[in-house]
Amino acid sequence: DPSAPVDPGEAEDFLRRCYTENPRLGPVEPRLAIVRAQVAATGSYVHTTDELAHGARMAWRNSSRCIGRLYWRSLMVLDRRRARTADEIYSLLVQHLQSAGEAAIRPVISIFAPAQPGQPFARVWNEQLIRYAGYRTEAGKTVGDARQQGLTDVVRGFGWQGKGEAFDVLPLVIETPAEGLRLYELPERAIREVPLTHPEYGWFAELGLRWHAVPAISNMRLTIGGVHYPLAPFNGWYMGTEIGARNLADADRYDMIPTIAARMELDTSRESTLWRDRALVELNRAVLHSFEQAGVKMSDHHTESQRFMAHLRNEEKAGRPTPADWSWIVPPMSGGLTPVFHRYYEEMDLRPAFYLDDEAADRAQGCPVKRTH
Amino acid sequence: DPSAPVDPGEAEDFLRRCYTENPRLGPVEPRLAIVRAQVAATGSYVHTTDELAHGARMAWRNSSRCIGRLYWRSLMVLDRRRARTADEIYSLLVQHLQSAGEAAIRPVISIFAPAQPGQPFARVWNEQLIRYAGYRTEAGKTVGDARQQGLTDVVRGFGWQGKGEAFDVLPLVIETPAEGLRLYELPERAIREVPLTHPEYGWFAELGLRWHAVPAISNMRLTIGGVHYPLAPFNGWYMGTEIGARNLADADRYDMIPTIAARMELDTSRESTLWRDRALVELNRAVLHSFEQAGVKMSDHHTESQRFMAHLRNEEKAGRPTPADWSWIVPPMSGGLTPVFHRYYEEMDLRPAFYLDDEAADRAQGCPVKRTH
Ligand code: HEM
Ligand code: HEM
Repeated sequence: DPSAPVDPGEAEDFLRRCYTENPRLGPVEPRLAIVRAQVAATGSYVHTTDELAHGARMAWRNSSRCIGRLYWRSLMVLDRRRARTADEIYSLLVQHLQSAGEAAIRPVISIFAPAQPGQPFARVWNEQLIRYAGYRTEAGKTVGDARQQGLTDVVRGFGWQGKGEAFDVLPLVIETPAEGLRLYELPERAIREVPLTHPEYGWFAELGLRWHAVPAISNMRLTIGGVHYPLAPFNGWYMGTEIGARNLADADRYDMIPTIAARMELDTSRESTLWRDRALVELNRAVLHSFEQAGVKMSDHHTESQRFMAHLRNEEKAGRPTPADWSWIVPPMSGGLTPVFHRYYEEMDLRPAFYLDDEAADRAQGCPVKRTH
Repeated sequence: DPSAPVDPGEAEDFLRRCYTENPRLGPVEPRLAIVRAQVAATGSYVHTTDELAHGARMAWRNSSRCIGRLYWRSLMVLDRRRARTADEIYSLLVQHLQSAGEAAIRPVISIFAPAQPGQPFARVWNEQLIRYAGYRTEAGKTVGDARQQGLTDVVRGFGWQGKGEAFDVLPLVIETPAEGLRLYELPERAIREVPLTHPEYGWFAELGLRWHAVPAISNMRLTIGGVHYPLAPFNGWYMGTEIGARNLADADRYDMIPTIAARMELDTSRESTLWRDRALVELNRAVLHSFEQAGVKMSDHHTESQRFMAHLRNEEKAGRPTPADWSWIVPPMSGGLTPVFHRYYEEMDLRPAFYLDDEAADRAQGCPVKRTH
């Protein structure tokens, strides 16, 4: 429960670690005394800028599902704790996307106000800052991202009108205690997109596929030393398979494999021709090729796996465990070809951490609204 | 410990389940009385043929790592508990391979004598009945299956001379309490093999790749109702990826991906061309194509995943949990394309079961011998 008072043990544990890892912050004892007093008096405490930044980096380092953790120290942390109104939040989210997406993509997190004991807090309903709408058609099919149908219904209920096309960026749904729900369209300058072409197949461009450059998860709660930040959107760069082997490939997302196989004129009469696998590889080649051509940073699953192996070695040298979730770390295609496949990992819930609350997951699917209808 | 006395609780638990699942076996109570008396007197008890057969099928059904469990009822159980000498065991293993490999491949298990409390027992060192030797060369490379280098060293120490080629079938290493270690060459009639060709690439045949038709694991212990069968080799048919995405692809096995990519003239200058993934798909097409051409039963990972989903539904209908290990169930290529990827499973250690003892794993690597050198 993000609105519960801070657990003093968790605060102390975090601060000790934070100050041990950063000797330049000085001795932790005086800081602990202050924090204990703050927590006793108010149920919470206020992180210094350094604590906030290092805490966010630790949370990334502790993300068991993330293969991209080698560069955890490089996370750019934007302290947005003062923002209160939906307008303020919106303009800072636009700034986030812009600073993340300029030139080479850089890992950025914007940290908004923490939850206060017993108080309601601001949040964004969208699971990522940029996501494409999904429209149910009369024929029972979907135009766009089927995963976003729920949220698309919600925003349409609030009067939003999409173009009804496959790649309409959804508006941001920002909820603040004072203003309730407000919808905001992202300006074009905040949305970098890459149209997909294939290095060999000319027809690929005719499919009209595209994807956005910056994956920015916006509905996970960041917990640092017992303080909960319910609005702390973060982004890295994409690993190609997230788009090519999941978003555009999954049967309950864009489901492009049968279409691509048809254009490739593959024998789809039986599974053993591996037509699915062949179409999958070409889709992923197209994704990597297109981002490369557009000069948008993206990594492939082989490179990112090697980096993760380096991360494991680094962390071992630093005497720290690296919690990891095999089923998320191993890429969704050619798993056995990557070094991350051939070993097991420790599973542990270390903090600071990012959590997806059930309610937040429901909101991103448009569920609470549907329930009250 | 396979030589420990039978746990009466485990015996009772198994028998109750076995008789409940097979009403035609009659009431379990009289049988329980007999078994309790046998265990009290001798530390063990003797399974009836029906108990043995159903126990083995339950062990398959409980194999969390096995995607092929839909047909668990069809397991053909060969009761080989009377065999004692290495010669007898050998000729029954040859029979096993023959009955498994004739025409369509069928799932078979041969169950040899159980371990008796405090007594040594017979076993086979090889991890599978058919495996290819691996020879270290002076250049520090390997000819053959690098995973079998340890066992290859052992059998060469016993005077076995392989041809030094990439696909030399290893002799069986049979250990009995009375005779110690004995080596047996498998006769040709027991070894069905498929030379690999590609549906389109003529040059593929020139690689000289082949694989055997029957995967028969021979070093796992079968435990039924507290009785341990240390020698109970079993086989199914191959799923193509076991050969195409692991045995022939893994860098520490046959490592064929770079060779195939070179023959395909792929751009291997950077990972993002996905040359590994492309070579992998073609290798796997070759495997499936060649087995199909040779009339040897094999399944692809899409079909086997669909079957496993059917198995999950069947078991749920039967009111039984299906323990499963995600990282083993999801195929090593195109994971995200298979329905088994998109859910979680219960992990449980249900019995009857197959276990790989550490000692058995070591022996298959030739370790105990190396240690005494
Ligand atoms: C720098 C480049 C990065 C790469 C290549 C990367 C890669 C990935 C990938 C492939 C996943 C799995 C996504 C999925 O299957 O849905 C993932 C998950 C995750 N990553 Fe990263 N990541 C990066 C940066 C970051 C950053 C900056 C953070 C936080 C500060 C982060 C935190 C997480 C978390 C919390 C998850 C789990 C998400 C969930 O549970 O849905 N990652 N990452
Ligand atoms: C009928 C066709 C079968 C298919 C297609 C099949 C498929 C598979 C596959 C793909 C694996 C993973 C192998 C690996 O990654 O190394 C596996 C593991 C396993 N299977 Fe099956 N299987 C079949 C029959 C059987 C039978 C008949 C048994 C036992 C009676 C069995 C018991 C097991 C066990 C115990 C494992 C785990 C092996 C280990 O831990 O190394 N399977 N199976």
